[in-house]
Amino acid sequence: MPFTRISLLAGKPPAHLSAIVDSLDRAMVEAFEVPETDQFVAIHQHQPGELIFDRHYAGGPRSDDFVLFHITTGRTRPHGVQQAFYRRLVERLGAHPGIRPEDVMIVMANSTFDDFSFASGIAASTIAAGQPR
Amino acid sequence: MPFTRISLLAGKPPAHLSAIVDSLDRAMVEAFEVPETDQFVAIHQHQPGELIFDRHYAGGPRSDDFVLFHITTGRTRPHGVQQAFYRRLVERLGAHPGIRPEDVMIVMANSTFDDFSFASGIAASTIAAGQPR
Amino acid sequence: MPFTRISLLAGKPPAHLSAIVDSLDRAMVEAFEVPETDQFVAIHQHQPGELIFDRHYAGGPRSDDFVLFHITTGRTRPHGVQQAFYRRLVERLGAHPGIRPEDVMIVMANSTFDDFSFASGIAASTIAAGQPR
Repeated sequence: MPFTRISLLAGKPPAHLSAIVDSLDRAMVEAFEVPETDQFVAIHQHQPGELIFDRHYAGGPRSDDFVLFHITTGRTRPHGVQQAFYRRLVERLGAHPGIRPEDVMIVMANSTFDDFSFASGIAASTIAAGQPR
Repeated sequence: MPFTRISLLAGKPPAHLSAIVDSLDRAMVEAFEVPETDQFVAIHQHQPGELIFDRHYAGGPRSDDFVLFHITTGRTRPHGVQQAFYRRLVERLGAHPGIRPEDVMIVMANSTFDDFSFASGIAASTIAAGQPR
Repeated sequence: MPFTRISLLAGKPPAHLSAIVDSLDRAMVEAFEVPETDQFVAIHQHQPGELIFDRHYAGGPRSDDFVLFHITTGRTRPHGVQQAFYRRLVERLGAHPGIRPEDVMIVMANSTFDDFSFASGIAASTIAAGQPR
């Protein structure tokens, strides 16, 4: 159910972008209790001056490979699950496409099943009863 | 009070975009307790590879006409109101500009009146007392 | 900890954009309990027809200089703090780059420390104990 916006500086090849999406997808399935094929992502490529990030605040050093994941979920996971997902996402991105851990930032916003409609005007909560999303 | 981001694949004519915005506006007034002229929308047009959506998960089949509405509200509506709005939005979009129900996805994030300032640094909660937003 | 998306119409010079970011940064440090260098911003420049805003709803009149700040925080501030921040941001933008108060809209979405990971897969809540974010 999560919907993710990815922001990064423009100029990466398409294979870099698709590798980021693949690694996000794998990390969600493996560590964030997200079903296979529940994949909805929007990528925002920013020009110089449009993506501002401190190079050292609470981590880093960050480089021009910085990637920010802004994830809207369908429910609030326990903190242990969140933490395991953060670690898994960083591991996956390190392997594919090869992003340094210091360049990965994650921001979550938690909604509820009621707040999602996947299609046809049907609330996700009416079709998701008992499903692990 | 809602603020809506609309994400879709780039390449639609301007009339298609404005019809989406019009139908969103009508559905909000008719079924989501939003006042006339309370209209704030940002459209993000994505290149191929920048908007990823499963074609069949929890609905579909989705096509390249897929449109995702990401709506930040000023209060949490009752679930019945949300459901009625989902249905109305899909109906409106089906009529104008003619989008298949299967291609409409909605994600809500609920904030509060305090979290909005429409203009001039004034919190919406200080001007909205008793108003149906 | 806040992450801010800024939406405005495309066409402003780079100095205008950087002045907006500078003023946001100053207002956050001065009035929103945000540490120095805690600065993460994504700017979305929209073409005509991609940014729709009522010129008069609950404020205005709004012009083509309209700027919308969509801020995801790491905790819910008291309403008095929010209000002071709204006012400070408008003041700062009025001075630099010179934006009319009527053209400034703010939408907040409040997450928690647990919902942020600044880098390396580490949850902000595990490094932020007792820090004023």
